[in-house]
Amino acid sequence: MSETNLVEKKVAYLGPPGTFSHSAVLAYFDGGIQLVDCPTIDDVFTAVENDEVGFGVVPVENSSEGAVNNTLDCLVNTPLKIIAEVVLPIEHHLMVKAGAQADQLKKIVSHKQSLAQCRKWLSKRWPTTTQEECASNAEAARRASREDGTAAIAGKMAAEVYGLDILESAIQDQEDNSTRFLVISKSMPASSGRDKTSTLIYTENRPGALFRVLEPFEHNQVSLTRIETRPSKKDIWDYVFFIDFEGHISDESVKQVLKKLAECTVEVKVLGSYPVANTQ
Amino acid sequence: MSETNLVEKKVAYLGPPGTFSHSAVLAYFDGGIQLVDCPTIDDVFTAVENDEVGFGVVPVENSSEGAVNNTLDCLVNTPLKIIAEVVLPIEHHLMVKAGAQADQLKKIVSHKQSLAQCRKWLSKRWPTTTQEECASNAEAARRASREDGTAAIAGKMAAEVYGLDILESAIQDQEDNSTRFLVISKSMPASSGRDKTSTLIYTENRPGALFRVLEPFEHNQVSLTRIETRPSKKDIWDYVFFIDFEGHISDESVKQVLKKLAECTVEVKVLGSYPVANTQ
Repeated sequence: MSETNLVEKKVAYLGPPGTFSHSAVLAYFDGGIQLVDCPTIDDVFTAVENDEVGFGVVPVENSSEGAVNNTLDCLVNTPLKIIAEVVLPIEHHLMVKAGAQADQLKKIVSHKQSLAQCRKWLSKRWPTTTQEECASNAEAARRASREDGTAAIAGKMAAEVYGLDILESAIQDQEDNSTRFLVISKSMPASSGRDKTSTLIYTENRPGALFRVLEPFEHNQVSLTRIETRPSKKDIWDYVFFIDFEGHISDESVKQVLKKLAECTVEVKVLGSYPVANTQ
Repeated sequence: MSETNLVEKKVAYLGPPGTFSHSAVLAYFDGGIQLVDCPTIDDVFTAVENDEVGFGVVPVENSSEGAVNNTLDCLVNTPLKIIAEVVLPIEHHLMVKAGAQADQLKKIVSHKQSLAQCRKWLSKRWPTTTQEECASNAEAARRASREDGTAAIAGKMAAEVYGLDILESAIQDQEDNSTRFLVISKSMPASSGRDKTSTLIYTENRPGALFRVLEPFEHNQVSLTRIETRPSKKDIWDYVFFIDFEGHISDESVKQVLKKLAECTVEVKVLGSYPVANTQ
């Protein structure tokens, strides 16, 4: 049995190969791993839950587009823990089949969101070229590798996976466009000394509920880094809060906050304590 | 000049005809209006801003799927005001060309989100039938009206617009599935006695910022009905808060809250004070 057949050496990610999630896997893991690409975010969670792989990597937030709701909704039900975050700058490139020339270009394909993120550039440089949406940037790159006259907008990783030439680099309209990914697994790491904690909080649906959730953070000087609201899916127009804050669950101040929250909310689920990404 | 050529009688909505936004228009307006269907949410805002129409209707939140981010992002930049909300129960139906039979059905088409909302029902009733995504439910209905063997999943309105027969009703997996729509225009209505106010709040990106935003609400006993976070698009990993609360800007308690917020935040934009929908 080779080393890479061990479950703990297998990493599932949102595929197909060449996605930004694929890049996030390579940025976080040191090598000696076996990659498993999954068609959906749900499938990544399921693969880790069923011990088919030891780790999963999924996008959770883009700096321009906001939360990835599908990942948040999966976090509600999973017993898995977040063990790390990876922040990647998102750069889009225009790429074509190796050797193809710009003047042969008839069509530009990419994921809807990527076409949107390059809208100004496209209308300036390729105003009359047909645009076509497809399921992912990696799928766009795969098509560009097979179809004459088709260019893809995708990340560098996709160009490498499908052997494409990059015609123009960093074509996204917005600078500072980054995506945050989560690494999920079955057990939580010990404190690194510079951690954050992610929680999911259910409150009673009554006036002042969120204020009472935030009071213990203020009282214990624990800084929130992010708050997101999602439908609870229990009652109509009822919400859950995803609250991220500085510190590890083994910190005294965090213990105090969690103790107080247990008293004033319906439920607090700790999704994980993990090191803050260096790139933030 | 006929009455329906007056700008104030024209209503733009997220089309094509047969969408739930179309139903929301008919639920809110009394008739004597001219409908203008727009291909995107941005186009609805632009039509009202440019005085091509007097009102716009866009979806803002679904009870299962959460916020419609595109609408929130449009609200950031628009000078328009929210003048009303409309809450519609969302029921999906399976529909075919008039006279077509269930046993001729080869393909089911709908918007990705609607296919997802009927996933369990589809896997039970039509486990082997091909599913195909398209741009909107109304577009799916239009296709079903033209293609033999194609059924659409869409709302009742779409069946009426495209003259389809409903084969099976209320097929969505989740009961209590509703969508909230906003009516936007250039001026704000006076207090109705039972109103809510929507605001957009920019805070400094420092510890305790959100707590200080919520304090004046708690102090003045003004109840929050909803909070959403979106990327500010000014700085990376910087957020704005969409906060809805009970009361009208002409109420003394609301005036106090807004005064205090002006002192402790970077900016507060009032998006509108408008009557609470009856169906909530």
